[in-house]
Amino acid sequence: MYSIDLNSDLGESFGNYTIGNDSGIIQYITAANVACGYHAGDPMVMDRVARLAKEHGVVVGAHPGYPDLLGFGRRKMMLSYDEVKNYVKYQLGALSAFTRTYGMKLHHVAPHGAMGNQCQNDEQISNAIIDAILDVNPELIVYYCAGAVLGEIASDRGLRTCCEIFADRAYMDDLSLVPRKMKGSMITDEDLAIKRCIRMVKEGKVTSINGKELHIKGETLCVHGDGEKALLFVQKIRKAFEEEGIEIKAF
Amino acid sequence: MYSIDLNSDLGESFGNYTIGNDSGIIQYITAANVACGYHAGDPMVMDRVARLAKEHGVVVGAHPGYPDLLGFGRRKMMLSYDEVKNYVKYQLGALSAFTRTYGMKLHHVAPHGAMGNQCQNDEQISNAIIDAILDVNPELIVYYCAGAVLGEIASDRGLRTCCEIFADRAYMDDLSLVPRKMKGSMITDEDLAIKRCIRMVKEGKVTSINGKELHIKGETLCVHGDGEKALLFVQKIRKAFEEEGIEIKAF
Amino acid sequence: MYSIDLNSDLGESFGNYTIGNDSGIIQYITAANVACGYHAGDPMVMDRVARLAKEHGVVVGAHPGYPDLLGFGRRKMMLSYDEVKNYVKYQLGALSAFTRTYGMKLHHVAPHGAMGNQCQNDEQISNAIIDAILDVNPELIVYYCAGAVLGEIASDRGLRTCCEIFADRAYMDDLSLVPRKMKGSMITDEDLAIKRCIRMVKEGKVTSINGKELHIKGETLCVHGDGEKALLFVQKIRKAFEEEGIEIKAF
Amino acid sequence: MYSIDLNSDLGESFGNYTIGNDSGIIQYITAANVACGYHAGDPMVMDRVARLAKEHGVVVGAHPGYPDLLGFGRRKMMLSYDEVKNYVKYQLGALSAFTRTYGMKLHHVAPHGAMGNQCQNDEQISNAIIDAILDVNPELIVYYCAGAVLGEIASDRGLRTCCEIFADRAYMDDLSLVPRKMKGSMITDEDLAIKRCIRMVKEGKVTSINGKELHIKGETLCVHGDGEKALLFVQKIRKAFEEEGIEIKAF
Repeated sequence: MYSIDLNSDLGESFGNYTIGNDSGIIQYITAANVACGYHAGDPMVMDRVARLAKEHGVVVGAHPGYPDLLGFGRRKMMLSYDEVKNYVKYQLGALSAFTRTYGMKLHHVAPHGAMGNQCQNDEQISNAIIDAILDVNPELIVYYCAGAVLGEIASDRGLRTCCEIFADRAYMDDLSLVPRKMKGSMITDEDLAIKRCIRMVKEGKVTSINGKELHIKGETLCVHGDGEKALLFVQKIRKAFEEEGIEIKAF
Repeated sequence: MYSIDLNSDLGESFGNYTIGNDSGIIQYITAANVACGYHAGDPMVMDRVARLAKEHGVVVGAHPGYPDLLGFGRRKMMLSYDEVKNYVKYQLGALSAFTRTYGMKLHHVAPHGAMGNQCQNDEQISNAIIDAILDVNPELIVYYCAGAVLGEIASDRGLRTCCEIFADRAYMDDLSLVPRKMKGSMITDEDLAIKRCIRMVKEGKVTSINGKELHIKGETLCVHGDGEKALLFVQKIRKAFEEEGIEIKAF
Repeated sequence: MYSIDLNSDLGESFGNYTIGNDSGIIQYITAANVACGYHAGDPMVMDRVARLAKEHGVVVGAHPGYPDLLGFGRRKMMLSYDEVKNYVKYQLGALSAFTRTYGMKLHHVAPHGAMGNQCQNDEQISNAIIDAILDVNPELIVYYCAGAVLGEIASDRGLRTCCEIFADRAYMDDLSLVPRKMKGSMITDEDLAIKRCIRMVKEGKVTSINGKELHIKGETLCVHGDGEKALLFVQKIRKAFEEEGIEIKAF
Repeated sequence: MYSIDLNSDLGESFGNYTIGNDSGIIQYITAANVACGYHAGDPMVMDRVARLAKEHGVVVGAHPGYPDLLGFGRRKMMLSYDEVKNYVKYQLGALSAFTRTYGMKLHHVAPHGAMGNQCQNDEQISNAIIDAILDVNPELIVYYCAGAVLGEIASDRGLRTCCEIFADRAYMDDLSLVPRKMKGSMITDEDLAIKRCIRMVKEGKVTSINGKELHIKGETLCVHGDGEKALLFVQKIRKAFEEEGIEIKAF
């Protein structure tokens, strides 16, 4: 029996500022990655998203980022191992207050933005995140992008992991995403995107941009929540998964 | 058998900025109120103080404040009930990641600065704090200043409370502190200050600035940590308590 | 010859967060009140709005607020006279770097949110703002809401002032706005709203919610920029002003 | 006739947090580099330092940094050209409000921390800073560390420059500072340090850590302000300069 988790980044609003459509997308996903007040999110937003997640039976994970609201956590910052570890801990702890409020446990950790990107290759940052998790709650599942060193380290150190795939992105030969500025980086044909996802889930394989066959674990699919089109695509891919006998459920 | 808890505000440094002498004062207290990154403190500081507390057998409480680093949480802000509740939750959660790291449980909550002052009379703010605690961890003890409505509400709603007294401050007839700008607000005679503390602990009584005898529960004494003089005073009052058979221990 | 200035709050976006439709509304106004990075806005946004203003011949004023991005500057904070003065100075200076970039001079100051509301009655805050202006650039025009003590103090202290009126709000007998929660606070009939504006500009009169005739100076009209409807209303009221021989131009 | 400017980083306090001894060191320097609220400093601090500078006849320059109070601007951040340009502009403008308050003009710009370090080799960042200065005030003098590409670009683009030297640091063959972790990076012998400074000012020469003779322009000396020892050293080196006929005055 095959299954797939559908995750999306939620809770990225801040104060009077709104990003995303949390109450819309949450109806179609199984896991929410919730911003924790560093690169986005605030306690009011975190409370709202945790409540929504409870209502829709969606598991809640932390989406920790760099302390850079002005740059939405997308700008690389040179932080020490201790800084990354303690910043992640702080964010895990903060979010857990809101999951507890609604009788839920924190389910996973999915690093955001620049921090997430650096987890593809940076062992120090990956270890800092893993150590934060081990100190705070070793039951948390580590969501990592296919090919990321974060996934390897998490497994090696005894944590459960969940490999994230993307429907709309092409892969390099090392499983990293083709950079957005490169030609062919986006899979714009929706039917093709869906076929690729099904193959990643069922066969554990994907064809790289250079035509190479790669092994990949399609355990959770990242779903975008912004815009009417994104919502329609989620519904379409859900239908395709169901027709293929792929169960949609949290990891 | 009488006993007294000695608490002090720690972890108020931020990044490259230092306030207080955490590693000095922690040797003489039984409870640390730790800033949680809103009005002061940051994840590196919180980690350091939690480790120090573990080493010295000091219990750790949260010292939540308003989101006003620039004003050190001392400026009144008009926040809604939900804002106070969620801001406090966020801070409790964040700090708990660091106590957990060192195998400790969060012990109490002592509101800081303007938030703390407003707890003297403001029922909405007090209820917001209590609701945050009930949602996140009902075992937390509420530290309140003598006479504060926060203490009453906490008791009424089933939380354990601990009444805080001050060695160096005079009291009004309603147990509120004499404002610093009023004459006689500070008890500058150290021996008198110590005598008053002993009486508050043993007899549960204090004489107001107007000469009125008031009932007061001396359950925890607020100890200042800044400066050589403060450290000497703590040692002096500890000695006096011991001579009077008042055990110094966490609440 | 009658004339009216049309002002709108712009530059309220921050980093990855967007508020308002700056490039849309700027086509219909004569004066932009630009957020300065305290309650909203950032240097990238300020640069963009200053450039837009230059392109559309719109004058730029500062829209200083409290240092409370999380609350969008709408939450009252208890600040000292010196704090308000220096916070306003800082924001005036920061914005002036961007007007200078595009060969413009800063034109006016219009306090935002809670700071703006407090200028209705609070002499200390009003004086702090006026002193900041006098220290930094006494040629700046003070935009004040009809009836505000800020306007009186600005005049008394030798600054030029510009009285702001609202199309969609009813007035109390003291010229303050009818609070939004009171019945009748909003003028929802667009034709009535426009008639009232024309009367305020031409006759200097408005009828209060209690039916009292009040003197008012309609020198600048606050125009909302959010939403399709707001843009249509601006075009409608511009047309009405033109038909009435009221010139639309910056103060 | 030889002359030297003595500069120091001031205004690095923030809210309730104090760094440095501004009122002490300002008595011995000729130029203050003032933090502008991004990596350190706030409007109250900027006002205080500007007033002190006026009282002591010290020129005021901007000390802009990255928007990273938590890291004191010492952590490298990957910012775009536009971001650096606009962040610098914002800070220049903000500080100019306080110099204007005391009848002074902004005198120079000296990038702080990670931004300053990157000016050693990074042309994009250097150009962003230069463009900010050209847009806002082309009369500002660019303080650059000996050997920095910032100095070259500033000259090429028509700005006046001032070359900064250090008394207590050894130089690499390319005039960059020997990294602190390398042996021999610090000149700990005060007499030797002073001799080196005098030679840099009078002969325009310094011996690198590898024994190579380098050309250097000793136009401004960076003076540390923290600690009793630092104050004593400033007085000592001032005396030595005077005995050598080197006039101490702002550039």
